[in-house]
Amino acid sequence: MVFDDKRGLQIALDQAKKYSEGGIPIGSCIITPTGEVLGQGHNMRIQKRSAILHGEMSALEDAGRLPGKAYKDCTIYTTLSPCNMCTGAILLYGIKRVVMGENVNFYGGEKLLEQNGVEVINLDDDECKELMAKFIKERPEDWNEDIGE
Amino acid sequence: MVFDDKRGLQIALDQAKKYSEGGIPIGSCIITPTGEVLGQGHNMRIQKRSAILHGEMSALEDAGRLPGKAYKDCTIYTTLSPCNMCTGAILLYGIKRVVMGENVNFYGGEKLLEQNGVEVINLDDDECKELMAKFIKERPEDWNEDIGE
Repeated sequence: MVFDDKRGLQIALDQAKKYSEGGIPIGSCIITPTGEVLGQGHNMRIQKRSAILHGEMSALEDAGRLPGKAYKDCTIYTTLSPCNMCTGAILLYGIKRVVMGENVNFYGGEKLLEQNGVEVINLDDDECKELMAKFIKERPEDWNEDIGE
Repeated sequence: MVFDDKRGLQIALDQAKKYSEGGIPIGSCIITPTGEVLGQGHNMRIQKRSAILHGEMSALEDAGRLPGKAYKDCTIYTTLSPCNMCTGAILLYGIKRVVMGENVNFYGGEKLLEQNGVEVINLDDDECKELMAKFIKERPEDWNEDIGE
């Protein structure tokens, strides 16, 4: 992989920081093997009253309609461990590499990804952890809603 | 359950038939224990150039922002076995009952749902099977794209 994972996470983190719009600070991007940004986005639950626009889903939506082969060699970066929905979307499109910022504030479908042959890397990034911890502390109801609790 | 499953599937099938807009004929609805339609929708890949608006996802999106407890006793109806993404969304929101029209044209995450305590019922409906088989035969490229192949 020529693309630096820290650079990929930074794009996701820059997306997460757009929560200053009033949303939930989780961002994501999908990077091709040649380092192109296929799609990027952030959680839009609050902004669009959406039950499905998690960060990873927003990045997939931003990439638009693509043939299945477009995803296969990509890496998806996300600031937080992917939930079951986003895990399922990663499996549907056959993305074979997931790089996350952290899994301390939420632990999602990592085992299911690995069971299905997906490489899962946790960068355990302090800035991602602090951003999410601060949000959960300040707005627990919005956070619980986002994870279906 | 006071609500008749055939009635739930009919709502999903009516949604699927909206593919005459130019889309993919898969529909879904989410029904509360008292028989209220919480959300309904159909696959919008073609119409909205969307990678995430499968039938079940459209029904979730139609339901809007809700607290997690709103989903727990609902049934989600879908004309076709739910893919990994939709399976993950069902798990995220803790929907405990899935009724599908068929799983002949596509077999999705049924085992994963059952492993997680979700009741899965297949009505093996001829109209659902015929609608989907006709679409796959006529537009195989759109179908393959929808399942990430």
